[in-house]
Amino acid sequence: MRFGLDVGGTKTDAVAVAPDGMIVGRVRRTTGWGPDAVVATIADSVRELAEVTGVRPDDVTSIGIGIPGQVAEGTATVHHAVNLGVERLDLSAALGPVFGVPVRAENDVKAAAVGGYAMHGGTGTVAYLNLGTGIAAGLVRDGRIWRGVHGTAGEVGHISVDPHGPLCPCGQHGCIEAFSGGGSLARRWGRSTALPVRDVFDAADAGDAEAIALRAGFAYGVASAIRVLVLTVDVDAVVLGGGITALADRVLTPVVTELERSAAASAFMRSLRLGDRVQLLPPGSPAAALGAALIGDADPVEEREPLAHG
Amino acid sequence: MRFGLDVGGTKTDAVAVAPDGMIVGRVRRTTGWGPDAVVATIADSVRELAEVTGVRPDDVTSIGIGIPGQVAEGTATVHHAVNLGVERLDLSAALGPVFGVPVRAENDVKAAAVGGYAMHGGTGTVAYLNLGTGIAAGLVRDGRIWRGVHGTAGEVGHISVDPHGPLCPCGQHGCIEAFSGGGSLARRWGRSTALPVRDVFDAADAGDAEAIALRAGFAYGVASAIRVLVLTVDVDAVVLGGGITALADRVLTPVVTELERSAAASAFMRSLRLGDRVQLLPPGSPAAALGAALIGDADPVEEREPLAHG
Repeated sequence: MRFGLDVGGTKTDAVAVAPDGMIVGRVRRTTGWGPDAVVATIADSVRELAEVTGVRPDDVTSIGIGIPGQVAEGTATVHHAVNLGVERLDLSAALGPVFGVPVRAENDVKAAAVGGYAMHGGTGTVAYLNLGTGIAAGLVRDGRIWRGVHGTAGEVGHISVDPHGPLCPCGQHGCIEAFSGGGSLARRWGRSTALPVRDVFDAADAGDAEAIALRAGFAYGVASAIRVLVLTVDVDAVVLGGGITALADRVLTPVVTELERSAAASAFMRSLRLGDRVQLLPPGSPAAALGAALIGDADPVEEREPLAHG
Repeated sequence: MRFGLDVGGTKTDAVAVAPDGMIVGRVRRTTGWGPDAVVATIADSVRELAEVTGVRPDDVTSIGIGIPGQVAEGTATVHHAVNLGVERLDLSAALGPVFGVPVRAENDVKAAAVGGYAMHGGTGTVAYLNLGTGIAAGLVRDGRIWRGVHGTAGEVGHISVDPHGPLCPCGQHGCIEAFSGGGSLARRWGRSTALPVRDVFDAADAGDAEAIALRAGFAYGVASAIRVLVLTVDVDAVVLGGGITALADRVLTPVVTELERSAAASAFMRSLRLGDRVQLLPPGSPAAALGAALIGDADPVEEREPLAHG
């Protein structure tokens, strides 16, 4: 049984994945702050998941961890997980001896990309587009992540698609993330609210002109990211996930409308059938935890050697 | 000895490539119009190249042909080569029996991408960005073309990077090709001249305000394509080729200036070192012909079986 965890800034989501790829158990708990508390959260989640699924610790074959930070390929060391209060943390050293199984980590968006690829059917080429505080994509081809030369493949959030667009904290104008990232929308909306994107969409539905403009910009940014991904790498599908997709069709409808607008203007864009290639993950899908479980089991490398139980 | 040809709308460029990858001979001739004339142009180029290089026809091991049309992977049949007056042409059937060697074809931009990859050093991941009448890219990783699911990978020319930008013949506004394609620049400049892009650049140098704006837009479009390619697939290098690059540093300088502008505004963009990743092919480089030669010899498939001399 492979265990996979998505360690988020507020919640940690853990799944147990059977040899046939099915998710057979899931638990969620609040993420602690700082390296020790993050390790404790993961360890407690693993134990709870074993209990819930009736899996003996010895039957766990690997632990994969998706985490919002930088992780070098094939390692379990995360750097700069600023939302977790973690500067550097070797999760294999911290957890491998405890559970006696290989531990591997991956950036959370890349883990979600692998999970989204599996949920899409596990074949071909899929771009996973994460709509959260920021905007980033992960590319998966034949089950493997395309990392790029310096690990920045998929950073489509900082492609400018309007030289006169909103200022992005990165310093450019009109970045896709400046149009569509939850952080940018919250700043531009400027009202204190727990769920700013939902608040903007509610206000737009109620006819607020500023909110309608912000929602149109959001759709323009997401549609631009989809156009960039399809025109550059011609993926089978763009799978949308991330916190904002909790709004489900309220997110998808304006994005598809924007894609239809460009298709109506252009026979070439129409031929690409972008609307047909976009898929929204069901809200609450454990894409990142599933992907982490698959990555944890990715390669029979040296970490696979049995470790003594601690 | 592998022969490679780049069959362009006006000229056909042919090179002989030795087993060590060196170009040992090159000829150019005017391309004929229509399928029969295109076949005759290729056949005459092959014979002339054999003569110039002192290679006996028996020593030619493969013929690869780059051609501006659609070519399915691993075939020698081109479709919709409208600039050559060719709707459909099986180059293997037409030329294989004549020369008794395997004949393979490839879209000219994809062939140039393989050639540009070889010229860049033949390792890693390279995007070739073709600056000609239109704008398109080819992605090469570990020597292989990334085609995408429907063969449209690299069609970055029709990514819109300004919703208020110039109208593209494709129907969208602000496409990279609408800013930077030679065809679009000629239309927007509107003066009858044999070399419209050079004319725009000359007028810009002379202080013409409209030409200065067009040149700035050209640089914005090319820089946007480079940003899209690096942020989406994180390539080692973006190699610039195509007809417009005959202007050499006059093309490169405004593009690098535009990249520096975004780097000055954004620490993130600065960290990507885009200026360092851009490389201009020397004007007149036979990238497409070299790439065609390499593709002609790509795989030991059934076309390799000896054919009778016709």
